[in-house]
Amino acid sequence: MNEPRRRGRPVELDLERVAHVALDMFRDQGYDAVTMEDIARVVGHSRRTIFRHFPAKASLVWAGTDGFADSLKAELARTDPSLPAMDAVRTAYVAATRIPPELHEVTRQRLLLIGDNHTLHSDGVARFADVGAAIRRTFIDRDGLDPDGLDAAIVGDTLVLVAHQAFIWWARHGEGEPGPVLEAAFDRVAEGFRRR
Amino acid sequence: MNEPRRRGRPVELDLERVAHVALDMFRDQGYDAVTMEDIARVVGHSRRTIFRHFPAKASLVWAGTDGFADSLKAELARTDPSLPAMDAVRTAYVAATRIPPELHEVTRQRLLLIGDNHTLHSDGVARFADVGAAIRRTFIDRDGLDPDGLDAAIVGDTLVLVAHQAFIWWARHGEGEPGPVLEAAFDRVAEGFRRR
Repeated sequence: MNEPRRRGRPVELDLERVAHVALDMFRDQGYDAVTMEDIARVVGHSRRTIFRHFPAKASLVWAGTDGFADSLKAELARTDPSLPAMDAVRTAYVAATRIPPELHEVTRQRLLLIGDNHTLHSDGVARFADVGAAIRRTFIDRDGLDPDGLDAAIVGDTLVLVAHQAFIWWARHGEGEPGPVLEAAFDRVAEGFRRR
Repeated sequence: MNEPRRRGRPVELDLERVAHVALDMFRDQGYDAVTMEDIARVVGHSRRTIFRHFPAKASLVWAGTDGFADSLKAELARTDPSLPAMDAVRTAYVAATRIPPELHEVTRQRLLLIGDNHTLHSDGVARFADVGAAIRRTFIDRDGLDPDGLDAAIVGDTLVLVAHQAFIWWARHGEGEPGPVLEAAFDRVAEGFRRR
């Protein structure tokens, strides 16, 4: 993956490596203490190059969640269209967040950072707005929820937050796959959102 | 309230007026387009003076929610200690968020801004962390929830978000008091959080 540096040819930025290095630095020195400059120095690229790919420090931690709304939509499309919205979302969310075992550790590390830092958590709210919107849409389409009603205003972002908290809990206390934790968390709030 | 300016005596900053003026500017020109400089110019104070009281633009919108965690705790302490946590939180939250009718309009205006702007909403996550913690504590103390369990990890911030969304919905569609909307929203998720 890391080709030797050749003169006159710009060295490609290994995004995964940069994110890994940043994560280690955040864990060892604290998220707030590490600057983009520090990271650039350690990975041997200019601050500008890093910024081109990671527009903010938070992006280094949230890396890997880009495109999650699309994955969730794809998984939703794969579910039986007659399933009520709550069941479809539960099934699709678990499928879309499946992590290969070799990535459990790095995912856990990311989640621990987010769980311990309000700024990082806040940053996720805007990042996951599309995910909340996709869930809301599923309830409107499948269960006939009134788009202007109170339920439609609550369901999307609430389920996103519940899933987020399930993942943070898994990072802190869970063993094995996060899927069962996610299902248990959804089940806490599911009753009120089931088709009536 | 606005005493005439006297020479040699610094003019006190009327915090409520500054927040009102800012709110009107955000509504008319868009939140992102208005700078602290613009606000300072319109209210006739230095940018530095404004910053001393409102450390960020978001603080001008969230003004009035400072100390909400304390109000909620006070209302929680006022409820019958034998009430299950979910009922105590529901009662206390409605009491702590009661708004005098003459402030409905300005509150609505604030909430509309927050509801339409992810950055502003994100900013609320850290501001309300103490509120989530107080709710979590209530469930641990009253219902014996395991502090390290999944339920304790979910309940606090989820109820804060549900309340927040209820308020945004009220600002957009609601009539009269926000209390009944808040109660209806809590009822959507209450079942899963009731003492078992």
